[in-house]
Amino acid sequence: MNRGLMMGKKFDTYVVIMAGGGGTRFWPWSREKRPKQILPILSDRSMIWETVERVRPLLPRKNIFVVTAQSQIADLRKEISMIPAENLLAEPQGRNTAPCISLAAIHILKRNPQGVMVVLPADHYIGSRRGFLTSLRTAVAFARKQNYLVTLGIPPTEPETGYGYIEKREIIEKIGGVPVYKTRSFREKPTRAKAAVYLRSGKFLWNSGIFIWRADIFWSAVKKFLPALYEEMNRLTNTLGTPREKKVLQMIYSRCSSISVDYGILEKADNVALIEAQFSWNDVGSWSALKKILAQDKDGNARILCHPTGKGRILLLDSSNCLVRSEEKLIAVIGLDNTVVVEAGNALLVCPRDRSQDVRKVLQELQNRGWKEYL
Amino acid sequence: MNRGLMMGKKFDTYVVIMAGGGGTRFWPWSREKRPKQILPILSDRSMIWETVERVRPLLPRKNIFVVTAQSQIADLRKEISMIPAENLLAEPQGRNTAPCISLAAIHILKRNPQGVMVVLPADHYIGSRRGFLTSLRTAVAFARKQNYLVTLGIPPTEPETGYGYIEKREIIEKIGGVPVYKTRSFREKPTRAKAAVYLRSGKFLWNSGIFIWRADIFWSAVKKFLPALYEEMNRLTNTLGTPREKKVLQMIYSRCSSISVDYGILEKADNVALIEAQFSWNDVGSWSALKKILAQDKDGNARILCHPTGKGRILLLDSSNCLVRSEEKLIAVIGLDNTVVVEAGNALLVCPRDRSQDVRKVLQELQNRGWKEYL
Repeated sequence: MNRGLMMGKKFDTYVVIMAGGGGTRFWPWSREKRPKQILPILSDRSMIWETVERVRPLLPRKNIFVVTAQSQIADLRKEISMIPAENLLAEPQGRNTAPCISLAAIHILKRNPQGVMVVLPADHYIGSRRGFLTSLRTAVAFARKQNYLVTLGIPPTEPETGYGYIEKREIIEKIGGVPVYKTRSFREKPTRAKAAVYLRSGKFLWNSGIFIWRADIFWSAVKKFLPALYEEMNRLTNTLGTPREKKVLQMIYSRCSSISVDYGILEKADNVALIEAQFSWNDVGSWSALKKILAQDKDGNARILCHPTGKGRILLLDSSNCLVRSEEKLIAVIGLDNTVVVEAGNALLVCPRDRSQDVRKVLQELQNRGWKEYL
Repeated sequence: MNRGLMMGKKFDTYVVIMAGGGGTRFWPWSREKRPKQILPILSDRSMIWETVERVRPLLPRKNIFVVTAQSQIADLRKEISMIPAENLLAEPQGRNTAPCISLAAIHILKRNPQGVMVVLPADHYIGSRRGFLTSLRTAVAFARKQNYLVTLGIPPTEPETGYGYIEKREIIEKIGGVPVYKTRSFREKPTRAKAAVYLRSGKFLWNSGIFIWRADIFWSAVKKFLPALYEEMNRLTNTLGTPREKKVLQMIYSRCSSISVDYGILEKADNVALIEAQFSWNDVGSWSALKKILAQDKDGNARILCHPTGKGRILLLDSSNCLVRSEEKLIAVIGLDNTVVVEAGNALLVCPRDRSQDVRKVLQELQNRGWKEYL
């Protein structure tokens, strides 16, 4: 496959990996100082490493940006040392996706005013690399020539209540046989009943958080829908690479609102397009979500053994649909269904699968008690 | 209280503590080399230590015997150093209670042919020390002058299926107002329905495994019902204190049957008496049984924190009737009921309370897999 041809004759494509997430959902494996994206959750390499490697056939390394929290820069630099150091952009604090993507956009605009941005979360599961690259190439080809903000939607397989949904409208055009739709509406995490309606209608796709657009088109949208952010970030443009950059950045982040690109721009803009992803996907947003992706035994149990130590052992008797992770101890489970048991570092979590999102409550309680060594 | 008067003018009373149990029921806290009786399960001292201290007001230390496995002698000597070393009797292998009590009987007969034996398991919960000593004094007073094998029965409080039951008949006599009954029958662990019938009838008591009898009366019963054991053990009598003792003991144990005193003698003899215990009791036979004895929070959860390390932490959210033990890690439990979570050494157990007797299956599976470091 000819990269140059697929992605345009010039390497005008840039990938922006959003890697600012905290360490809450996969506690106790993830911690404040060890967020999900640097954990080897789906293989023996970290999720961010996998995300970078996945897009390598699309473009040269110097075109890959990673936006992360200042506190995570050092760890990330080690983890994805294939990325040029200057492409790791540090946010002084987390402000959701709109400021994050804007920061990347002004870096890209400076390098290439016609650049096309592919925005990717650092910590999602992608079922097929081939399908993923095909979908991205289709989206880039469309975004390069059309003035659209393109989203990748995942054909839903169940009435999931943890995802956002995007409703499609008429086809704008077909790229290599793949239809590109206009979007009718964005729907936040629905109730079970609504999710079932969406699923049956065939008109809704899951919002993957993967976006493709020309940087200039995005920047126009920021100007229109988030003018304050636009003003602030434009001031930053002139300081890039100067001693003032860091100070200005801190000031911007201390003042700007925390807002998602979905809510701040995509739900309001009328030039949003939607392409059906040609790969299975999962946001790996909880222990329960992870369980669905991992290999399972005949009773539906998934096991995670910690490879570095090699000490972990798991023994399941009369148990089904459990997710068990062992790091250094033997974990013996008898007679449990749909239960999460996770050993990591100095802590252990036990909960029903459908309560796994409540690890947040554990973290809150640890804060309250001042048990900071477990955060 | 005048000990000499209560227990007879001469110190003719001997306590025999059976401490031969293995480390299965409280796995992973108990292990092959760390059986239940040396664990600090109910306080910060071991169960065997508590058992010895509990009977100290009854008799001098030199009258307390402990029968245990050869492999446990060294650990026990350290744990209950108040007992003279020669009073720790080692069994070459476990052969259930009949050989164990017989071994103690010949030691006692040699010291005092009129001696009264109080036989106690090393690892039970006794709710009231005062009630316990009162019951023993009553039983000893009766056994000293009557030719009966006396059992202590516990008034049942629920239709427990894990205990044996003893049916009482007419009163033989009253000792200090306490009736001593003849026994009609011994019933092995019953079904739930039968246990409910026993409970309602008011005629059945739980078999506590606590026995009181004159050594000579017991020895006559062994002669009658277990003649082979009687012959063998009589040969041992002449070797006690000689270099041949150990070898003869090994030979006896290699040949004798594994049989309980209940099945081998008490169910067959017609001179068995029964006294109602004046204390609450529990055999602490499983994690679930232990849960009933421990202090509980308002949601019925019991916690065991390992005092020596001080590192353990427990955090329970929306959970009830759980038993959780933490040794060095934080154990966070969300949304579970009636669940046992136990961290100990290199292993962790998670199971519903009503499956806690199935730790045996875990141990069997560990054997099968050759994972001996967890046994």
